[in-house]
Amino acid sequence: MQDTSVSETAAVDAPAAAPTSHVVLSVDAMGGDLGPAAVVAGVAKVAQSMSDVQFLLHGRSLDLTRLVQRYKLEDRVTIRPCDGVVTMDDRPSQVMRHGEGTSMWSAIEAVRSGEATVVVSCGNTGALMALSVLRLRRLPGVNRPAIACLWPSRNPAGFNVMLDVGADVKAEANDLLQYALMGVSYARNGLDVARPRVGVMNVGTEEHKGRAELRQALDMISDVAEAGQFDCVGFVEGSDLPSDRVDVIVTDGFTGNVALKTGEGTARLVADMLRASYKATPLSRLAALVSLGVIRRLRKRMDPRRVNGGVFLGLNGTVVKSHGASDGTGVAAALELAVQLARSEFSTRLAARVAGAADAMAAAAAKAAAGTGK
Amino acid sequence: MQDTSVSETAAVDAPAAAPTSHVVLSVDAMGGDLGPAAVVAGVAKVAQSMSDVQFLLHGRSLDLTRLVQRYKLEDRVTIRPCDGVVTMDDRPSQVMRHGEGTSMWSAIEAVRSGEATVVVSCGNTGALMALSVLRLRRLPGVNRPAIACLWPSRNPAGFNVMLDVGADVKAEANDLLQYALMGVSYARNGLDVARPRVGVMNVGTEEHKGRAELRQALDMISDVAEAGQFDCVGFVEGSDLPSDRVDVIVTDGFTGNVALKTGEGTARLVADMLRASYKATPLSRLAALVSLGVIRRLRKRMDPRRVNGGVFLGLNGTVVKSHGASDGTGVAAALELAVQLARSEFSTRLAARVAGAADAMAAAAAKAAAGTGK
Repeated sequence: MQDTSVSETAAVDAPAAAPTSHVVLSVDAMGGDLGPAAVVAGVAKVAQSMSDVQFLLHGRSLDLTRLVQRYKLEDRVTIRPCDGVVTMDDRPSQVMRHGEGTSMWSAIEAVRSGEATVVVSCGNTGALMALSVLRLRRLPGVNRPAIACLWPSRNPAGFNVMLDVGADVKAEANDLLQYALMGVSYARNGLDVARPRVGVMNVGTEEHKGRAELRQALDMISDVAEAGQFDCVGFVEGSDLPSDRVDVIVTDGFTGNVALKTGEGTARLVADMLRASYKATPLSRLAALVSLGVIRRLRKRMDPRRVNGGVFLGLNGTVVKSHGASDGTGVAAALELAVQLARSEFSTRLAARVAGAADAMAAAAAKAAAGTGK
Repeated sequence: MQDTSVSETAAVDAPAAAPTSHVVLSVDAMGGDLGPAAVVAGVAKVAQSMSDVQFLLHGRSLDLTRLVQRYKLEDRVTIRPCDGVVTMDDRPSQVMRHGEGTSMWSAIEAVRSGEATVVVSCGNTGALMALSVLRLRRLPGVNRPAIACLWPSRNPAGFNVMLDVGADVKAEANDLLQYALMGVSYARNGLDVARPRVGVMNVGTEEHKGRAELRQALDMISDVAEAGQFDCVGFVEGSDLPSDRVDVIVTDGFTGNVALKTGEGTARLVADMLRASYKATPLSRLAALVSLGVIRRLRKRMDPRRVNGGVFLGLNGTVVKSHGASDGTGVAAALELAVQLARSEFSTRLAARVAGAADAMAAAAAKAAAGTGK
């Protein structure tokens, strides 16, 4: 049965009109393992391939001026000088109290003030999340913001979406519902998946009394699926993360983070074993030479720099997190994702979707209470 | 400070005296996807390589008599005729009530009665766990039995141990402590790791208020490590599962099962991508031919049939679960593990370790309460 508030929301996901103004990205140049040089190298790549994107670059003036000159980006980049840097060891609570003046704080402020719609940073994830929640604040109706990651998959888009992978460590049924809605919006606008399929992560064993919130969440997600113009495929397991049967997988942040790290570790292990196997004998080293093209194709497919750090969903403004160790290519991938989300007016649509669904749930509950059924 | 009860226990882990009687394995021949033929093929392999092992084989008399004759195993195998079979769809609670007469029930009974020390089955995991707890009962001091799996790793033994991977879905701090003790005993006796290093699975984000039981568990595990003659390396992440810095990783069964399935799914994805990359061009197909040795070495290293279904820890008797889809090679691997555990008197040592540690914890708590410190 159609619920007008959610279907009106769904109509918001129709392709955006051609933008009349360029996209502005707010980029934190500091705090990554490879320093501002890697970030500016990434900016240079994207500046070259996308002529309508402008960059606000936050960080140490001396470093950035030199780098911007090297890449001849003066007409594409505006430097915002900041002396402070959030390091990987800084505690998020400390950064919330004393972080003003850091490049991370400044980069977030530019989105808060509306100068840009998306922040990109390679710095301390915990601090970035804490500052983003503090300064950008949650969207109406969002209880827990989430970090969503892209997982290599057999789907045409090449990736599935999983969330939460670390913004929090527990999730109630209502949080999982919100994750589903935010994930659907991300899959639509970030991956161009027209009708995303949502699954809730669970284990196969039956009759366990714990984790009742998963069944509850699944029911709630199924209830709004039609109105939200997505499909709910039911429970999925860890082995379904790369599956072509699902597009968005929702779970609590602890489980999601363990799954994310496990997948990364396993891919790395297989790659190491493959490399060791190739080195094992003279004949296999010859095989390696012949197989260079194969290995290159595989690495490109599984490239963690493309998968990268994640997107923060549920705040007033979009935050893209690049891996701390990202090089220029990795940063460029994060920036391209940020551009795509900015162009699709992702932030506005996500806000509308979440708000609309909250209304839909309330309306359905009211109807049920009034005894007219659903 | 030495605690005599646990160090006496640790002395139990010294190498066993040469066995005076052969090992008897109790094998459930039914319920796997490939039927009794795969199981008996596995039995035949192990019978050939290990002359002192005898097998009790439970299942449909007609099938088993034919298969035993085919492989000429009459002097190694005793058939226990059973008409009933637990299927993959049977609910554990139903099997607990009506499972008598099935091959799974019969196989467990042989361990309960002392005819054999280890059960091996490829059937319904939930039913196997439920029946095993019901008929074998928990060891004194064990609140939650656990399923432990072997994870391919960079360690000399080639594998790490993770538990729980699905016996339960939640774990308190005390359960994680018991998992650690059981995992240490398994690593010692199943993998010959002299001084296992234990880690508690956690996520890297700090200052999260949930999951306080993990900190508590880590403290408890650290407290008994010296007396238990193992090391505690602290928190580990999902990416540490294949690491050479740790041997035993403890977590709750929900997280463990998700990690296990995620790792399997990722390895499968990489293998599929590798295969696709090799097929992509005529040159790469040539490279595949040259690389056959490499691929074979890699598949052997990562062979899920070797990793297999898991071991149930914490019951009066050891239960080895082989993957439902195991072929003869997979079943043989499970049987070889079972033999190793039987030979090392694993069950007895694990019981002693757990009981000893419970005493040690109680003694330490009493001392702390009496104010004499630790």
